[in-house]
Amino acid sequence: MNNFTFYNPVKILFGKGQISAVSQEIPAGARVMMTYGGGSIKKNGVYDQVMEALKGFEVIEFSGIEPNPHYETLMQAVEIAKRQKIDFFLAVGGGSVIDGTKFIVAAMEYEGEDPWNIMAKREPVTKAAPFGAVLTLPATGSEMNSGSVINRVSTKEKLAFGSPFTFPKFSVLDPESTFTLPVRQISNGVVDAFSHVLEQYLTYPVNAPLQDRLAEAVLLTLKEEGPKAVQNPQDYETMANFMWAATMALNGVIRVGVPTDWATHYIAHELTALHGIDHARTLAVVFPALLRYKSETKKEKLLQYGERVWGVNTGTEDERLEATIQATIAFFESLNIKTRLSDYEVGKDTIAIIIQRFEERGVKNLGERADIQVQDVKEILALSL
Amino acid sequence: MNNFTFYNPVKILFGKGQISAVSQEIPAGARVMMTYGGGSIKKNGVYDQVMEALKGFEVIEFSGIEPNPHYETLMQAVEIAKRQKIDFFLAVGGGSVIDGTKFIVAAMEYEGEDPWNIMAKREPVTKAAPFGAVLTLPATGSEMNSGSVINRVSTKEKLAFGSPFTFPKFSVLDPESTFTLPVRQISNGVVDAFSHVLEQYLTYPVNAPLQDRLAEAVLLTLKEEGPKAVQNPQDYETMANFMWAATMALNGVIRVGVPTDWATHYIAHELTALHGIDHARTLAVVFPALLRYKSETKKEKLLQYGERVWGVNTGTEDERLEATIQATIAFFESLNIKTRLSDYEVGKDTIAIIIQRFEERGVKNLGERADIQVQDVKEILALSL
Repeated sequence: MNNFTFYNPVKILFGKGQISAVSQEIPAGARVMMTYGGGSIKKNGVYDQVMEALKGFEVIEFSGIEPNPHYETLMQAVEIAKRQKIDFFLAVGGGSVIDGTKFIVAAMEYEGEDPWNIMAKREPVTKAAPFGAVLTLPATGSEMNSGSVINRVSTKEKLAFGSPFTFPKFSVLDPESTFTLPVRQISNGVVDAFSHVLEQYLTYPVNAPLQDRLAEAVLLTLKEEGPKAVQNPQDYETMANFMWAATMALNGVIRVGVPTDWATHYIAHELTALHGIDHARTLAVVFPALLRYKSETKKEKLLQYGERVWGVNTGTEDERLEATIQATIAFFESLNIKTRLSDYEVGKDTIAIIIQRFEERGVKNLGERADIQVQDVKEILALSL
Repeated sequence: MNNFTFYNPVKILFGKGQISAVSQEIPAGARVMMTYGGGSIKKNGVYDQVMEALKGFEVIEFSGIEPNPHYETLMQAVEIAKRQKIDFFLAVGGGSVIDGTKFIVAAMEYEGEDPWNIMAKREPVTKAAPFGAVLTLPATGSEMNSGSVINRVSTKEKLAFGSPFTFPKFSVLDPESTFTLPVRQISNGVVDAFSHVLEQYLTYPVNAPLQDRLAEAVLLTLKEEGPKAVQNPQDYETMANFMWAATMALNGVIRVGVPTDWATHYIAHELTALHGIDHARTLAVVFPALLRYKSETKKEKLLQYGERVWGVNTGTEDERLEATIQATIAFFESLNIKTRLSDYEVGKDTIAIIIQRFEERGVKNLGERADIQVQDVKEILALSL
């Protein structure tokens, strides 16, 4: 096991009726900016529940945070929040709203030249305004971590940042607030959470048997509950299990002391930035190709994953590796998530653009062994055509 | 899954060499009281490493915190700390030192009549002095939770308390600081951690498949690493895996949203209070008897535990239940931990005393179904003779 630091101070309020508890978690007298997306929370009752819970607070609303939240939009929120002297933020929505709010709270206290540099130049965040979250879409894990991914429309860039100051103070996870999600978003959420675990698990063994089993616990739960969630999104227990699994997939617990990959995410972000393809779908395209391309260096963990998650335990090593990758693809496809670039009408020309961007950005040494270079990215994407 | 709140802000610094990091975690200029036990840390180098890390801080030492820490001793520490205007505490040792320090920091800020009432009358802790920990003995999980168990020698009482204010600010887990542990303490630690998981897992199903698998992940790790740790306590990787498993066993992650039992702990504490038997050994005596006594109401989880942890999957239901309990007993005994009262020269007279004490204390409704009354305790203890 590698040395590690673990720290996650997010208070989780889980279960039906918990939205009302936000009133006890926000400092009395706070001026609150409530951030949200396109208005689905007004249709499913979450907006009303939050507003009811916020009675007694001054509340300014900021809506319109997009999927893959836009830097340009978020900077408007920062400007309004500063003018309105906001001192607490409440993100109500999925990962995009929460990620976007993380950027807003960091930008609120940013004292440098341009807040975009937090992502572009990796300028460290040294303070941030406090915020909480009400999660409506299990997927990204953003509700219980300090990371965020922001899009800049003008330059078609999608970049990440994180800091110890951008953990939510609390997050409410009420499975009932997921009941009206479109099936597409549920299946995206399952694949997103599943991919998060794979990024932290399918690397190489470092004698960390507990972390392996914790990761497999999340994978097995998503394998079982994911299809049920897609079929019956109003089953409370199914959605509760899916919701908690998606949070556990990326709250840091399964990652401690082990190498992590994240090359798939790094590559896949380009497909969203260039073509607006749903994040989860870009992962479903890149992951199988990357696993196949790196099956030699990921062999031990791939075989363990195949056996413990998919029951692959017969055949030669090569056959088991292929069966494991096929099982992963079949799982994604069973959720109606396509796994090839051609399914999204993306071709070789896009690969060329991505390679050019990576070369310009000086991308190198991706993956848990830092052995994926730009030319490898090209081959991985070619495998996913 | 049941509704739950999860909150655990402890920062974990894990791995070799991490003791030196405490200097960055303690506020500059703090007057530090370093609390420890009987001096083993002076023999294994931990004392020197901590002192080196604390250079530049004013440090007052308080040693002599016993296994099953004594209220009487801890109150001496409180008196000295107040006189010396201590503003940060650093517990260096195992669960007893950390538990004791939790009581010290709570008593430092206690404004009521008698700090013993924090345990005896369950008076809530509303503030506490800050503290960190350097763990030298994997077992109790105290390094990453807010709970504590204190003994009062004069009355032979052993009582628990906890509060959101008694989390360590940080805990250092360096597996190398366990290298000189006596085998007895390692085997105790394995059984203690294993029992912690059983208390949170062997109840009844509430459709929480992720929590089940997370608990099983810790059990399987302890099953595999525990015997190796006893045989080779200087194997870094083994001790690292054991250490992290013991922490994960009681940091709250596996407990969320599920019922918990804790009757075994409640009953077993009496055996330590009355006879000074090591905590883990009292658990190894009570648990098998309790599982046998409650095998009907715990049936579903016992069968799942038997199958997933011990591979028990043949025979009638009754045979599988018995095989599962026997496997648990065999595991404890394989670690040289005896599982019967008679092994500790404890007989019926002690059962009578415990029953009398429980009656006087008005003990009732123990266990996950609140269905264990004093008469049931009598029968459970009789089964463990």
